[in-house]
Amino acid sequence: MMVVMTTRATEAQIAAVRAKFTASGVDAQVIEGELATAVGAVGDPNGIRKSDLESMPGVERIVPFSTPYKLASNELTHHEPSSFEVRDRLIGGNETFCLIAGPCTVESREQALSVAKTVETAGASMLRGGAFKPRTSPFAFQGLGEEGLEILVEAREQTGLPIVTELLDAQHADLVAQHADVIQIGTRNMQNYVLLELAGQLGKPVLLKRGFSSTLEELLMAADYILKEGNERVILCERGIRSFETATRFTLDLGAVPWLKQRSHLPVIVDPSHATGDASPVEPLACAAAAAGADGAMVEVHYEPKAALCDAPQAQNAKDFPAFVSRVAVHAALAGRRIAQP
Amino acid sequence: MMVVMTTRATEAQIAAVRAKFTASGVDAQVIEGELATAVGAVGDPNGIRKSDLESMPGVERIVPFSTPYKLASNELTHHEPSSFEVRDRLIGGNETFCLIAGPCTVESREQALSVAKTVETAGASMLRGGAFKPRTSPFAFQGLGEEGLEILVEAREQTGLPIVTELLDAQHADLVAQHADVIQIGTRNMQNYVLLELAGQLGKPVLLKRGFSSTLEELLMAADYILKEGNERVILCERGIRSFETATRFTLDLGAVPWLKQRSHLPVIVDPSHATGDASPVEPLACAAAAAGADGAMVEVHYEPKAALCDAPQAQNAKDFPAFVSRVAVHAALAGRRIAQP
Amino acid sequence: MMVVMTTRATEAQIAAVRAKFTASGVDAQVIEGELATAVGAVGDPNGIRKSDLESMPGVERIVPFSTPYKLASNELTHHEPSSFEVRDRLIGGNETFCLIAGPCTVESREQALSVAKTVETAGASMLRGGAFKPRTSPFAFQGLGEEGLEILVEAREQTGLPIVTELLDAQHADLVAQHADVIQIGTRNMQNYVLLELAGQLGKPVLLKRGFSSTLEELLMAADYILKEGNERVILCERGIRSFETATRFTLDLGAVPWLKQRSHLPVIVDPSHATGDASPVEPLACAAAAAGADGAMVEVHYEPKAALCDAPQAQNAKDFPAFVSRVAVHAALAGRRIAQP
Amino acid sequence: MMVVMTTRATEAQIAAVRAKFTASGVDAQVIEGELATAVGAVGDPNGIRKSDLESMPGVERIVPFSTPYKLASNELTHHEPSSFEVRDRLIGGNETFCLIAGPCTVESREQALSVAKTVETAGASMLRGGAFKPRTSPFAFQGLGEEGLEILVEAREQTGLPIVTELLDAQHADLVAQHADVIQIGTRNMQNYVLLELAGQLGKPVLLKRGFSSTLEELLMAADYILKEGNERVILCERGIRSFETATRFTLDLGAVPWLKQRSHLPVIVDPSHATGDASPVEPLACAAAAAGADGAMVEVHYEPKAALCDAPQAQNAKDFPAFVSRVAVHAALAGRRIAQP
Repeated sequence: MMVVMTTRATEAQIAAVRAKFTASGVDAQVIEGELATAVGAVGDPNGIRKSDLESMPGVERIVPFSTPYKLASNELTHHEPSSFEVRDRLIGGNETFCLIAGPCTVESREQALSVAKTVETAGASMLRGGAFKPRTSPFAFQGLGEEGLEILVEAREQTGLPIVTELLDAQHADLVAQHADVIQIGTRNMQNYVLLELAGQLGKPVLLKRGFSSTLEELLMAADYILKEGNERVILCERGIRSFETATRFTLDLGAVPWLKQRSHLPVIVDPSHATGDASPVEPLACAAAAAGADGAMVEVHYEPKAALCDAPQAQNAKDFPAFVSRVAVHAALAGRRIAQP
Repeated sequence: MMVVMTTRATEAQIAAVRAKFTASGVDAQVIEGELATAVGAVGDPNGIRKSDLESMPGVERIVPFSTPYKLASNELTHHEPSSFEVRDRLIGGNETFCLIAGPCTVESREQALSVAKTVETAGASMLRGGAFKPRTSPFAFQGLGEEGLEILVEAREQTGLPIVTELLDAQHADLVAQHADVIQIGTRNMQNYVLLELAGQLGKPVLLKRGFSSTLEELLMAADYILKEGNERVILCERGIRSFETATRFTLDLGAVPWLKQRSHLPVIVDPSHATGDASPVEPLACAAAAAGADGAMVEVHYEPKAALCDAPQAQNAKDFPAFVSRVAVHAALAGRRIAQP
Repeated sequence: MMVVMTTRATEAQIAAVRAKFTASGVDAQVIEGELATAVGAVGDPNGIRKSDLESMPGVERIVPFSTPYKLASNELTHHEPSSFEVRDRLIGGNETFCLIAGPCTVESREQALSVAKTVETAGASMLRGGAFKPRTSPFAFQGLGEEGLEILVEAREQTGLPIVTELLDAQHADLVAQHADVIQIGTRNMQNYVLLELAGQLGKPVLLKRGFSSTLEELLMAADYILKEGNERVILCERGIRSFETATRFTLDLGAVPWLKQRSHLPVIVDPSHATGDASPVEPLACAAAAAGADGAMVEVHYEPKAALCDAPQAQNAKDFPAFVSRVAVHAALAGRRIAQP
Repeated sequence: MMVVMTTRATEAQIAAVRAKFTASGVDAQVIEGELATAVGAVGDPNGIRKSDLESMPGVERIVPFSTPYKLASNELTHHEPSSFEVRDRLIGGNETFCLIAGPCTVESREQALSVAKTVETAGASMLRGGAFKPRTSPFAFQGLGEEGLEILVEAREQTGLPIVTELLDAQHADLVAQHADVIQIGTRNMQNYVLLELAGQLGKPVLLKRGFSSTLEELLMAADYILKEGNERVILCERGIRSFETATRFTLDLGAVPWLKQRSHLPVIVDPSHATGDASPVEPLACAAAAAGADGAMVEVHYEPKAALCDAPQAQNAKDFPAFVSRVAVHAALAGRRIAQP
């Protein structure tokens, strides 16, 4: 942490700042320049509070220089990419590409089972499907709830595919944990810290979607909330951020993939369906994600997109899905990865 | 809703779109232009789904033209600004300016009581203070919890000021409802729909903070979640949005005030403390909020800012608070409002 | 400037970074922490290049801590707000509020003269009007050019009001400088450095509008381009930034006013007309600008808004303008300012 | 265009809006709904002005539904991707991938010639290099000017590579046009309409970079400024937009590639170097651009990145460039494209 003093700071004010560091057991140094002076220390950021310093006389501003995330970083404990298995599919570790596919929402037994069969035959790694859905308007379809979870389990029995489904609220935690193989935390809950801690305690891998207005540092801090509960099986998911551009629903931030891979040991996947809100760019962007070095992608697939009860325009048609998988797989192969399968 | 057809859409495709409207009981008309054709209807947007139309052959895109929010609008039921009382303070109705002040977080009995006394003496309308705090990092101070609520109640007994405090999670709902006069929903929970509905059921006024990346339409839709539970006492709060500018912590969107006042009957207040993350611009921006026609402001006040356990740099010093109230009050008076008091 | 080393940086790498500083004549110090080491110096940022350091082995990142703007700052030469006169109106210096009003574009002699008369009678400080207009679509009305400038001069002769008009391109520089009292640089040209330098050489005050996606630091750096030509008469103008919010055309960043006033000696005015793209919030936001401590405001006024050839919805109606001036003036008076007049 | 009336609009007001359309020779229809009425027409958007309608009594808002860009669209004239040759390299037409590489800025004869040789040997399509540079701070290196252009010509003579260089200001137009094969319009000039028109008249292909805060619609409208001068050889370039995320310098919007390809006939390339401001993610993102269906990429290459006078951290090291080309080429090949070569 570096404390920059105003140009008119007195010797005594500078000494006071240095003493503040020393009192916290952190050794600080005074750096004098032509125009201004700074006092700096590289130490435990919990040892001294930013606000303590900011309010001291003569202080202009504080420049932090350690990363605010700890457990998700690859600096401290995990220097290599972490990996784990979900029903014999290897996730992470730079060898596989985890392709998660399925309907946005489970709407009926017929729909879910037929999509599950399609994605399994085409070679997907896991099945996604929502049982509890967050909706912007209070009057929209909210999902089938427990019945939806049971349909997903039946789909797993028929196809062997692990299930990824969203935990929307603490009241459904046990129910979701009993049925799901991977628990998804949605974009609107990325900073719901109570839910993050709970998700860390359920004993299942967690797929953490980036908040659509959260920075990558905040994503890694949110991952820390899960990791500190002792759950090391966390998957990060870039799903588009909100920018001034409204041509696409969100702006897919593919630059997040190399940035995260360079700084964190956690696997990073990409969701192009929600990012664009439109089916046609999903294939080029899923291929792009594979080319950029992502550990996987999550896409929506639907038999009859026009009848889907939510987010239909962004769902891939099931009949095109096998070709989609082939194209993504070759780009992933060029990046040294095979589709994750048992 | 207007369906714009591609330039190459066939007669049959156009007819099919029109038939889709008709089948939903909505009368549609075909509008032919030189380059393109559109099919339009002004009807119940729940009667037909956007996704149904988007996937039809020949359709280029859908242009909605009714507002997605209903109960918060001033078009349907409340043509005049709504108002209600909280312990004899009038909120809303364009006559008063509700000045809510207090510490960011309740840290101790001494701190909370002394700040409460200061803000009451200076003429504030209500006391704010956090007992449960959302924190970006899992290692930061999380608030005193129930003990904090009890301290707030003691402050109310001593000063008569109504209490505004945040409901962070469903598990604390009853506890918070028992103690608070106004229940605050924080920026990170603006789209936590389960919590919104719950807040609507607790029988207390709700102060709904805008999500820092939520549009104004989404804010009004979030208010609908509370209003539909039969709770009409909702206060909207602009508290800064996330933009590319990082000079201030968030970008205070004061244009939101006239925009919301023009479209909604709900009272609109402004929180300049969290918007800027810095104490020095709080006074000019609170005065600006009053001048812009806001129904109130919420600010942080602290006796010894340098010792605050969270967000200290943005807290006003208590000794400057009486002068602050005077200045805000005169700008509010020019806008035809008196500080809300019993 | 602080160079943060990676956790695995060697002694030799750290020494090399320090030597780099020393070779540039800047004294650097090594700050050792538990997890990482940093090398820091407070010196002339031109003496050493950020890129030199970033590419050295063992370097994680560079943390600058001096401001990138110089001449616009109030740290170095001008510790007090600067001020100057334009035809006997005092601009800057914290005593006056400069109210600039007029049509978006000069459309005809009749229109311009009648608006000029209205704004002068109502008490405005200056007359604005565009002769050359930037338009997003190549097929829109581009302004009257030289004829427009001559009409503005005639308006000045009749009313005494100084003229503010935009310099859009270098080819019109002499023409605009001959006619205008204040030369405006538009939002799309804030980083057109050739034009900024040229504007600095024309011997007239410059009104520099913030780029709608430019940070406040970039605004001050752009001002430096004008100031370094020896022209100290620069007015900064906040006019709304582009954010994710589309309810208003741009997001007026009123927090920019106290931020800029605290760091720069230059006068700061606000343009609510372009920020919102709508006439109705212009008055509340102009009052808010005055309450926030701005040195002025610039608004569009039109006799018959419905016939304006550009940006009509955001223009104030001339008949309402006297009441508008009265309301803004009282908020400015509370902030210790009188409307700038001869 | 659809005019939505307020819920309280009278019959006469509705009739007046319809009459306004009719008077402009556009046939309009009235669409009645339960809550509101709309008046719509699909016609020449130049025939009637949005502002005329917005100010009519009873009008709530205007919903445009034709695209604001014309010549760049693939709806009107060019239904197929357009293509053209630059010194026997085919650009556009979905068959080739145009790889443009070179130094950010021409710094010396030795530097430029050695980089040119490297990129030609590795198989690049064109050579990029700046002779005139826009710089945020007025005190930074501004480029070699005419001398830089002559060095680029010498590099072309030695390697056969066509030259891409930026036109920064009208005063250099003839000079740049004489030397360059492709004229680049930089991100800060995307809405410098005078320069766009000039670029359209120089008889050379134009590479138009997206403004870092411009929407895709605005990019296509800017292209219209060039196209209307009769110059059909325009290349669009996505180079990152400004968002709230500061982890990368800009946010590369790869979703722009399929969006633009779907709506415009113009070739679309991607510049990952400027988007990220860092060399390490350039390769994954260039591969991603190829996988997403881009018509090319533009990257910075430097022999000794640490000595570059501008933007060094984002330049690829020349020794790694052959491997880079190989990897990008295979992803492009999967998308059905070969690197553009004579």
